[in-house]
Amino acid sequence: MAESLLPFFQPKGVVVVGASTSPEKLGYGVARNLIQSGYAGAIHLVAQKSGELFGKTIHTSLKDIPDPVDLAILIVPTQSTPQVIEDCGQRGIKAAVIVSAGFREVGEEGAALEKQCLEVAQKHGVRLLGPNCIGTIDTHFPLDTTFLQPPMPTQGGVGFISHSGAFAAAIVDWARGQGFGFSRIVSLGNQADVNETDMLPMFAGDISTKVIVMYMESISDGRRFVRTASEVTRHKPVIALKVGRFEAGQKAAASHTGALAASDTAFDAAFEKSGVLRAETAEQMFDWARALENCPLPKGNKIGILTNAGGPGVIAADSLEHHGMVLTRLADTTLDALSAILPSAANTHNPVDMLASASPSQYAECLQILLADNNVDAVMVILPPPPMFKAEEVARKINEVIGKFDKPVVIALLGSTLVENAKDEFQNAGIPTYPFPERAASALAALVKRAKSLDRRPPTENYTVNSLRSAVRLPDELMQAYGIPTAPIKLARDENEAVAIANELGFPIVMKIASPDILHKSDVGGVLLDINDTAALQSGYAQMMKRMEKLVPPPRIDGVHLQRQVAGGQEVIVGMVHDQQFGPLMMFGSGGVEVEGLKDVAFALGPLNQAEAEVMMRQTWAGRKLKGFRSIPSVDEEAVKDVLVKLSQLAAEHEEIEEIEINPLRVLAKGAVAVDVRIKFADH
Amino acid sequence: MAESLLPFFQPKGVVVVGASTSPEKLGYGVARNLIQSGYAGAIHLVAQKSGELFGKTIHTSLKDIPDPVDLAILIVPTQSTPQVIEDCGQRGIKAAVIVSAGFREVGEEGAALEKQCLEVAQKHGVRLLGPNCIGTIDTHFPLDTTFLQPPMPTQGGVGFISHSGAFAAAIVDWARGQGFGFSRIVSLGNQADVNETDMLPMFAGDISTKVIVMYMESISDGRRFVRTASEVTRHKPVIALKVGRFEAGQKAAASHTGALAASDTAFDAAFEKSGVLRAETAEQMFDWARALENCPLPKGNKIGILTNAGGPGVIAADSLEHHGMVLTRLADTTLDALSAILPSAANTHNPVDMLASASPSQYAECLQILLADNNVDAVMVILPPPPMFKAEEVARKINEVIGKFDKPVVIALLGSTLVENAKDEFQNAGIPTYPFPERAASALAALVKRAKSLDRRPPTENYTVNSLRSAVRLPDELMQAYGIPTAPIKLARDENEAVAIANELGFPIVMKIASPDILHKSDVGGVLLDINDTAALQSGYAQMMKRMEKLVPPPRIDGVHLQRQVAGGQEVIVGMVHDQQFGPLMMFGSGGVEVEGLKDVAFALGPLNQAEAEVMMRQTWAGRKLKGFRSIPSVDEEAVKDVLVKLSQLAAEHEEIEEIEINPLRVLAKGAVAVDVRIKFADH
Repeated sequence: MAESLLPFFQPKGVVVVGASTSPEKLGYGVARNLIQSGYAGAIHLVAQKSGELFGKTIHTSLKDIPDPVDLAILIVPTQSTPQVIEDCGQRGIKAAVIVSAGFREVGEEGAALEKQCLEVAQKHGVRLLGPNCIGTIDTHFPLDTTFLQPPMPTQGGVGFISHSGAFAAAIVDWARGQGFGFSRIVSLGNQADVNETDMLPMFAGDISTKVIVMYMESISDGRRFVRTASEVTRHKPVIALKVGRFEAGQKAAASHTGALAASDTAFDAAFEKSGVLRAETAEQMFDWARALENCPLPKGNKIGILTNAGGPGVIAADSLEHHGMVLTRLADTTLDALSAILPSAANTHNPVDMLASASPSQYAECLQILLADNNVDAVMVILPPPPMFKAEEVARKINEVIGKFDKPVVIALLGSTLVENAKDEFQNAGIPTYPFPERAASALAALVKRAKSLDRRPPTENYTVNSLRSAVRLPDELMQAYGIPTAPIKLARDENEAVAIANELGFPIVMKIASPDILHKSDVGGVLLDINDTAALQSGYAQMMKRMEKLVPPPRIDGVHLQRQVAGGQEVIVGMVHDQQFGPLMMFGSGGVEVEGLKDVAFALGPLNQAEAEVMMRQTWAGRKLKGFRSIPSVDEEAVKDVLVKLSQLAAEHEEIEEIEINPLRVLAKGAVAVDVRIKFADH
Repeated sequence: MAESLLPFFQPKGVVVVGASTSPEKLGYGVARNLIQSGYAGAIHLVAQKSGELFGKTIHTSLKDIPDPVDLAILIVPTQSTPQVIEDCGQRGIKAAVIVSAGFREVGEEGAALEKQCLEVAQKHGVRLLGPNCIGTIDTHFPLDTTFLQPPMPTQGGVGFISHSGAFAAAIVDWARGQGFGFSRIVSLGNQADVNETDMLPMFAGDISTKVIVMYMESISDGRRFVRTASEVTRHKPVIALKVGRFEAGQKAAASHTGALAASDTAFDAAFEKSGVLRAETAEQMFDWARALENCPLPKGNKIGILTNAGGPGVIAADSLEHHGMVLTRLADTTLDALSAILPSAANTHNPVDMLASASPSQYAECLQILLADNNVDAVMVILPPPPMFKAEEVARKINEVIGKFDKPVVIALLGSTLVENAKDEFQNAGIPTYPFPERAASALAALVKRAKSLDRRPPTENYTVNSLRSAVRLPDELMQAYGIPTAPIKLARDENEAVAIANELGFPIVMKIASPDILHKSDVGGVLLDINDTAALQSGYAQMMKRMEKLVPPPRIDGVHLQRQVAGGQEVIVGMVHDQQFGPLMMFGSGGVEVEGLKDVAFALGPLNQAEAEVMMRQTWAGRKLKGFRSIPSVDEEAVKDVLVKLSQLAAEHEEIEEIEINPLRVLAKGAVAVDVRIKFADH
């Protein structure tokens, strides 16, 4: 945890600079919230005009404020902000929240001012939050530096880091309506200084924060984020909602890998690598957060469903299977125990349907039986308004049972007015409820995913740059330096040289046009296969040169590349694009010319270890097929894994490489050969 | 509309058989709801013991009830139900709701009793709803035959047909909490007589029902459903939530098509064909319903976003693009008009960000400007709690604007307690609100999909069975009868015959093992390509026979099939499985041996017209590739479309065919040839 950020949540004393006695001003709201929050330290007010607010003196200068004070909330005119930060620095205040807007977000002039603020702050070692943000909240300490309409958010275990103040404000009100709360909230604004990655450890180290949710519009430093998040997720779950997925204007790519890697692919890979759960929607993010906040993690994905009605049970079963979970097969002893207490028309098999007559005691007893079954990793209880009983009676009874087991239980609490009291009962007991079985299923899936991600941790990145290898720039030599087998390839500048080289390499031979102007050779008829003898080579050479002459504009021709033809096995593609934010983004999948059409590819952030390479491969048909399929014989999977790992290592050590693509990598019964390797270096 | 079903919603008089004075009994609840519903006709009560309830006499016999009475609600012991139906029939009552359970759902004995009920009912022309159902509600007529806890559902325009009574009950309470209502509700129970398809026209013909939602666990008659739903969706939107998608125990399939067609694929295809919108979750179904109930349909998918905060605007933009909609480019005049009323720091480009200071008037004026832009088909307004104003003031102002245009507007109303009044304002004006931008985007997408589906109606199915063609059973002759070109194929029973036939067909030749025991020939080495002369044929023949001898158990060998080899072009697969419920389910995609691995296939319900065939083809890479891709030349798309249409016709006319598969269909520059055709006939 960065000590310098502690004052943003646990200051020893706070000063509001720009406090106002006009209730419609932000400087009034901030002072009000700070006082109403119950903050135990000293609260000081400063404004241009002296006076009194909430029984406190308004000072006209920071110098008049007594110690201790280590946090300033600035609601001052944009132009004066650098001077106020200077004053803070001189006063020994080490952290400032800049609430005011009008900086980088409005144009160049604002950006210059923002830069000035940062320079002044850094001179004095002052950390800045914002500008253009709504500040911080800690419901447990407690502290509220925002101007949001009271009351303060309910206390809870969810820590919320947001790139949008408006979104955070709306979520606070929405969560209040849902009856759940937060531990800490931070709105980051323009991030002149402190960004989302800086804040992560502040939430990870907070004892009241059980789960961290992040609303992200961008990332400040991709690699640092991955490093930091990887560390944080070892201890606490992190869920991210990353927007801006469909950014227009994708850059032109020189390889299939580049063309397929959308701007968002790297984020997916980065979250996967760092153990961050990526939510699809805001609602889902908080659905997951409530489960992760309150439930123990399941041992596996075998789920039991307990219901008093068939329909919702089927919906739940469908949705669980959709999320990759398994409707567990209950033990025989479980079935017997359920039969003993349920009417004969009830269904004791999973989903267990107790029928509409189910009493609170039956709910509790059946849940106890299910949770005691070793085949059950987690349970979804479905509770529509029970026709004969009150839902809250059911809630009270089953809450007692849930506490006895170390297994997650989520409630699909259907209905609204008739289950309001039950909702409160569950809320107070810390049992998450969802208005539909599908949302409860999604929450269970998040628990399972979190448990799995803890089992499979990313590798320690202890590779070191090998300066010898770094000097190599020729594709084949580079591959060989990293132990990736290639098919020997030689350049022939004319027909005679081609004949000599072919006889040296041995037939069959593949001939490819050698030209710096042609990227996709087969597109222009620049590849010739199955050349079995000298005569075929000669006629092929002549034919290919004739084709090249017809191209407009005429390409520069260096000659032809000759390669011993590697036959048999299976073809895959292995590629890498260097992502500006996250580094090497690896691709694996079905190769050939149709890569972009088939889209049978998977991405992951490098460097990869063997386990990560295997996960990637399994995500594609090309990878699954390596084991063999019908008349297609199995080939050397391990060799592919090896190439993926080595190529990711190569990419990590060669930041100057923008794209690498092996297409195809020919995978044989034993070993794999990089038949065609293309490398694009960065211009600079 | 079936006249016989009218009494379930608009009876001339109702009798409750099994009325009870004990408040905990269902017979009490039904009587109470019927009376409280405000039903204008006569309400009669019958029970074993005479007495009085809610000021009405309880009679002991149906014979004592005066006319008119055409609907009976039966809450009587299971065993007595047939006799009570008999009494109803004799009394001239034409419709009965059987609330009681204990029939088919509990086993054989119950099933027999249910059958008996149906027989008695049919004898007298009595229509039955249930058994094991909660009855019907019409909020406008009004009528409530259920025992659900009061109050009755709010009035609204959503008609709800449910296979689950418990789910319907829970939804009624949930919807009440959300503040929206229903027109009609029916719970179908065991469907001894009336099923979901029967009910569809009853909802389509109801003037108060604007949109129909269906919770489906099964289907009674797939073809009739498709016919009926196709008709209904011409006039009213229908949304279905179909569960039971992941049914275990898939039947063994004889073809790739069969293996890939999951039990749920046919439902997808049937909904697509009949214009029914399929929802993924219950929440989504009602989110869509509220938009379809209240909004005009958009002309296209070009969406404008109006927001007072950047973050939620980005979330909305992401989600709209995820749903296949387009963030529209605003007209220059629109940009100018927005600039004129917004501060300079505001963003006038889509998403239009008015900044946090946006006033109710600015919201209204900007919305007016957006809706007047021809580039805008629909608008999402994002309204978080405005920092400076009340959300309900914004609501009132923009509701006035929305009414002036014939374009859909949905509101992402973020927050909860601070926007409660605004929610009411929108509700009263019939403007749908959603708590998150993602859900608003999904609702807009449903509007766009509905508009598109109205544009592209399924074909009139006016084909007639051709008895001549129906008699043909040999694959090649069948194909030829329907004008699907095949490569001439001949059976050779021994090597000598093979040589003779090959010389007649001409080289190159393909040889395939002919055996009734071998389905996937290439899997066992039963296919030989590129046979260029007699010598190659002879050695190939010997080699293949040696391979077959090694198989365990030894297959029956009829000889070999010889076929002129068709070279070049592209290979695709075209298949059909006969779905028990819906008829011919067509498949198209990437062919070859890897079909099941690649899963590059699409399904649609036959018979197909050209347009439907094209939609299918475009869903796959195999289909898109026909136009050519890089070095792959384009081939004859029309020929493929033609084969799809003809094969679907063939399948429709040959119900005895269970599966057909053309793999590959070789598509050439001109024309397409069915190279390998396999047909599986039904056993019976």
